[in-house]
Amino acid sequence: MPEKINYENLKPSEARQLIREGVLTGPTAGIALGYTQANLVMLPKELAYDFLLFAFRNPKPCPILDVTDVGSPEPKGVAKGADLRTDIPKYRIYKKGVLEAEVNDIRDYWRDDFVAFLLGCSFTFEKALLENDIPVRHIEEGKNVPMYITNIETRPAGIFHGYMVVSMRPIPQNLVVRAVQVTSRFPSVHGAPVHIGDPKAIGIASLDKPDFGDPVEIKAGEVPVFWACGVTPQAVAMKSKPEIMITHSPGHMFITDLKDEMLAC
Amino acid sequence: MPEKINYENLKPSEARQLIREGVLTGPTAGIALGYTQANLVMLPKELAYDFLLFAFRNPKPCPILDVTDVGSPEPKGVAKGADLRTDIPKYRIYKKGVLEAEVNDIRDYWRDDFVAFLLGCSFTFEKALLENDIPVRHIEEGKNVPMYITNIETRPAGIFHGYMVVSMRPIPQNLVVRAVQVTSRFPSVHGAPVHIGDPKAIGIASLDKPDFGDPVEIKAGEVPVFWACGVTPQAVAMKSKPEIMITHSPGHMFITDLKDEMLAC
Repeated sequence: MPEKINYENLKPSEARQLIREGVLTGPTAGIALGYTQANLVMLPKELAYDFLLFAFRNPKPCPILDVTDVGSPEPKGVAKGADLRTDIPKYRIYKKGVLEAEVNDIRDYWRDDFVAFLLGCSFTFEKALLENDIPVRHIEEGKNVPMYITNIETRPAGIFHGYMVVSMRPIPQNLVVRAVQVTSRFPSVHGAPVHIGDPKAIGIASLDKPDFGDPVEIKAGEVPVFWACGVTPQAVAMKSKPEIMITHSPGHMFITDLKDEMLAC
Repeated sequence: MPEKINYENLKPSEARQLIREGVLTGPTAGIALGYTQANLVMLPKELAYDFLLFAFRNPKPCPILDVTDVGSPEPKGVAKGADLRTDIPKYRIYKKGVLEAEVNDIRDYWRDDFVAFLLGCSFTFEKALLENDIPVRHIEEGKNVPMYITNIETRPAGIFHGYMVVSMRPIPQNLVVRAVQVTSRFPSVHGAPVHIGDPKAIGIASLDKPDFGDPVEIKAGEVPVFWACGVTPQAVAMKSKPEIMITHSPGHMFITDLKDEMLAC
């Protein structure tokens, strides 16, 4: 494996090729900078209509970037020629809502009735925040973003229903308005915050005890700001205990050919 | 029928009630001003996934405002308590792609496997153009907007495929940029233009011969500007010759509880 590859400057197709060949197997943050990375949810066709409708009805937590044709692993809309069975570094296989395996390649699990959904992830809007000199605490602290189950009900669709999961970033008071503006430009990666301030107003008892991820420090003069989180569709789909569901492993995303800036309003 | 009702100032629920009672049976332009009106496409569930996916893949011609639950005529997302079987002044019933009837009420045609799609219509962005003193020629001339089948291919989904239909409005050269800005704010009602200028570049042989609607005058110093048109999904669905498809009659729209301004970015 050549040590001197500059992963930041890889083209998305080059990065996917290295992932496919098993050269790149770790988290994708920092690879092919400037290109949009996506969450994966793969489900049998019989659940695809309800899932697509759920996403349409809940665009903030479920911003869909692409949907494959039934039985095709190629996400033509965002990465022509890619193969979703091999081009993600790590996958999770869930059966009836239980994690069964974590693998680097899902060709053995592939079925002709699978539909793959690619959903926008927060990497894109965090980059926009950083470019605006708005601090992103969990990145500073080298942690996972803290995530909380709220009392905000999603709009149900067929078998899918449940509460919205949000991620929280502490923002200095004087930058809150700018943080709203910056993230509003990116509706296809969660967009504007869903809540600013008091966690109890959306059913969060304690910021110190996130339901997923790690707690982060909130400094004096900072306000907790909450964005809809891509964990929501996974959590909702899991609750329905589908026979089989395949997702990416956390942090191991699919790298699309879309440039982040092309997603902006 | 009371002569003195001010239709402009009706609340959407009041307007829908008068439509349901058969008091209002004509076109809906000018009723409940400021509230968003929508196109209707009703299809059996077995076609709903392909149609929803087609709309997701082609958001400019197919901007979805709401999708009902299977077998429910209530569009909960945009008009709680409304009934899509009775609350539109005039419907068209198509069987295998052929117009079979035009009726004021579809309770006799209703099926438990129906799914209704409400799609944004150009009324909303035309109002925004007029508020910006940008002329809308077909309104000035009292005609239907001219619509053209282009050579722009939609992205297919399942059985649905075909070319994009666009509407054309001549815009004075010095207002073209403002027209792009104003309509960009309304992505859920077709959004920004798809083309500016030369009709041949998108496969339109003659602006004098629209495929639907009426030709309009293009004055000296005006540029033809083309927007994706809501006729596209109807045309595409029709081409697949579904066993049954129900739509609104042209100009006879569904009046939602959404305010136009709430759709703006």
